[in-house]
Amino acid sequence: MIDGAKISAVGEVPADFHPAKVIDGTDLFAVPGFVNAHTHASMTLLRSYADDMKLMDWLQKMIWPAEAKMQPEDIYWGAMLAAVEMIRTGTTAFADMYGPWMEKVAEIAADSGLRAVLSRGIIGVAPDADAKLQSNVDLYNEFHGAADGRITVMFGPHALYTCPPAFLKKVGETAAKLGAEIHIHMSETKGEVEDCLKQYGKRPFAHVESTGLFENGTLAAHCVHLDDEDIAIIKKHNIRVAHNPGSNMKLASGTAPVPRLLNEGVTVALGTDGASSNNNLDMLDEIQLAALLHKVTTLDPLAVPALTALKMGTEYGARAIGVNDTGKIEAGYKADLTLFSTHGAAWCPRNNLVSQLVYAAKSNDVKTVLVNGRVLMENHELKTLDEERILFEAERCAKRLKQ
Amino acid sequence: MIDGAKISAVGEVPADFHPAKVIDGTDLFAVPGFVNAHTHASMTLLRSYADDMKLMDWLQKMIWPAEAKMQPEDIYWGAMLAAVEMIRTGTTAFADMYGPWMEKVAEIAADSGLRAVLSRGIIGVAPDADAKLQSNVDLYNEFHGAADGRITVMFGPHALYTCPPAFLKKVGETAAKLGAEIHIHMSETKGEVEDCLKQYGKRPFAHVESTGLFENGTLAAHCVHLDDEDIAIIKKHNIRVAHNPGSNMKLASGTAPVPRLLNEGVTVALGTDGASSNNNLDMLDEIQLAALLHKVTTLDPLAVPALTALKMGTEYGARAIGVNDTGKIEAGYKADLTLFSTHGAAWCPRNNLVSQLVYAAKSNDVKTVLVNGRVLMENHELKTLDEERILFEAERCAKRLKQ
Repeated sequence: MIDGAKISAVGEVPADFHPAKVIDGTDLFAVPGFVNAHTHASMTLLRSYADDMKLMDWLQKMIWPAEAKMQPEDIYWGAMLAAVEMIRTGTTAFADMYGPWMEKVAEIAADSGLRAVLSRGIIGVAPDADAKLQSNVDLYNEFHGAADGRITVMFGPHALYTCPPAFLKKVGETAAKLGAEIHIHMSETKGEVEDCLKQYGKRPFAHVESTGLFENGTLAAHCVHLDDEDIAIIKKHNIRVAHNPGSNMKLASGTAPVPRLLNEGVTVALGTDGASSNNNLDMLDEIQLAALLHKVTTLDPLAVPALTALKMGTEYGARAIGVNDTGKIEAGYKADLTLFSTHGAAWCPRNNLVSQLVYAAKSNDVKTVLVNGRVLMENHELKTLDEERILFEAERCAKRLKQ
Repeated sequence: MIDGAKISAVGEVPADFHPAKVIDGTDLFAVPGFVNAHTHASMTLLRSYADDMKLMDWLQKMIWPAEAKMQPEDIYWGAMLAAVEMIRTGTTAFADMYGPWMEKVAEIAADSGLRAVLSRGIIGVAPDADAKLQSNVDLYNEFHGAADGRITVMFGPHALYTCPPAFLKKVGETAAKLGAEIHIHMSETKGEVEDCLKQYGKRPFAHVESTGLFENGTLAAHCVHLDDEDIAIIKKHNIRVAHNPGSNMKLASGTAPVPRLLNEGVTVALGTDGASSNNNLDMLDEIQLAALLHKVTTLDPLAVPALTALKMGTEYGARAIGVNDTGKIEAGYKADLTLFSTHGAAWCPRNNLVSQLVYAAKSNDVKTVLVNGRVLMENHELKTLDEERILFEAERCAKRLKQ
């Protein structure tokens, strides 16, 4: 039973409730909408543009030159393509870090009906770093709480290796004044940890902690290379981790110590990262990879069971991005729901729906998606977006970026 | 251009060729049909029946008791469900090891139109081991080369830990007399290697080599735990490896040294293993996992590039299962083809089809499937199987097994 934006009852419904619309749930499996806790939506335009390369070759020779050509329409149509992909694959909320022109992504969140936590990716070593920080302030002032509260804004200092400590301090102070949280890449590669130790005499978490950045509430993406001290800092500041198994595998970054983080009570969510390092925005892939990768890495078949992986992609994701009234199918929570068709071989025989969702099914079984009580896709048909136009425009924009 | 069972031309077609049927390939991406080089098709009935358990608990408490209840109709409907799933996800050939009643699986291969390499899984420590071996002989005599050559038969001694050396020797001699090849599980777990060393004073490959089993041509599934000596034996006997990344990850068996095997010229194919340890028969999953897992394991983003992973699932698979006139789209090869629709977000923008297939797409984009020149699925519609009936019967059989 959904009343406005919220779930008002599950199972039993009051006799005097007369719904305006009924969705027949026969043979459907309802889960909380997937939360993509770390992505760069507009990078869909660079999907499979450069693969199977060494990280610095990939960035310097391919990704950065293409990004340098991006115009507002690229940010717009790239994020629009992402919105199509996210709704089709059952994602209802995403934490995005990109820019410039993040107001274009806000526009798409508003129009598509998706829930979004936006941050301006700020490169502190850039000559116009202060202008970038100011654009994150503007983004916050204009969009935090917008679109019926579906849009919130964080600050996005990109990483410690692109933001000097004095700049991180400034970002922290600016965010603190507004009461805003932080979204940052942390300890993604071994090289990043080694360079930080060399340059600052501290590991990344201790170094960033010393700037005060973690005081405001933090969503930290990746967190692959962690030691005891790092994990102690994560726990001390209640830092939420966005684990990106697909990206970490594809870029050969390493394997985050997810079972340990979960055991120690850290909130571990899942993200796809950008489509150029994944190469899709399919959260069911990440849920499946999280369940599989940590089993083989720890040689423990009980590491990250199916239900835990599903929670990482839903309930823990909601907590990680700071939208605490989503991520569960319970009265009082927002009606952000993904309904899977359970017809077909992957769901047969019907032995265990959670296990079949995580280990056997594909996101093409997503049939209907609701956010804030509004239907964004029904019976595989998108209700808020013009998919054919978006595919056409994204293709057109991508062609120009490659020239 | 397909003439009978074979591809007779690619690209240019003779002016005087008047086809009986034309498949419009606009916006479709044709790949050689996927080859599932190691599976246990009828185990679809146990999909998600028991997950997230320790291996011996899983086998002893759940899988074996359910298997003990299996009747011929379970083998039949389980493999039928597998056939639906394989055709829908673009698989055109599969190497199966199971039993008893493998003639039921042969019947399904014949009726579905799939290509199959069947072996009777023989437990040599069973009291009726000789009868099991004889049933593999019968299977060979009745079905090797059947269904227009689509069915071939190998011998399936299950593993060295279920077949004493004298029995492996007997299987090898029996197979050699018929000119049949061997399909066997090898070095799947660390425990298997340690136990073999303890019991026989040799590692698994040296031990099995000493029985003469490798003289006939061998398809070895898993091959996770290998040292230099193992790899030397694999190369000496031209043993083809069926790598099962999904199963090895889910059961926490370990990571096979695939990049090294490929570098040393070993034929490495891909398999799903049974649906109870995967939990689907989707070869595009295995292709994607092979591309991702070895990058993160070796910390080399160039390990197993997209095209190599695709070849493991097609060309190398065909070689591994001993069907050498399939696996390539070239004149003279059998017309075993999978056509992907490239419409939709995962394929947009169209930057690199192979990369998008391996890293972004899902098998629900499989639109049309041909085996031996015959259309088994066209425009998502199965042409040889009654899917609704099969889903119903599989569900019915599975209920009985769980009682």
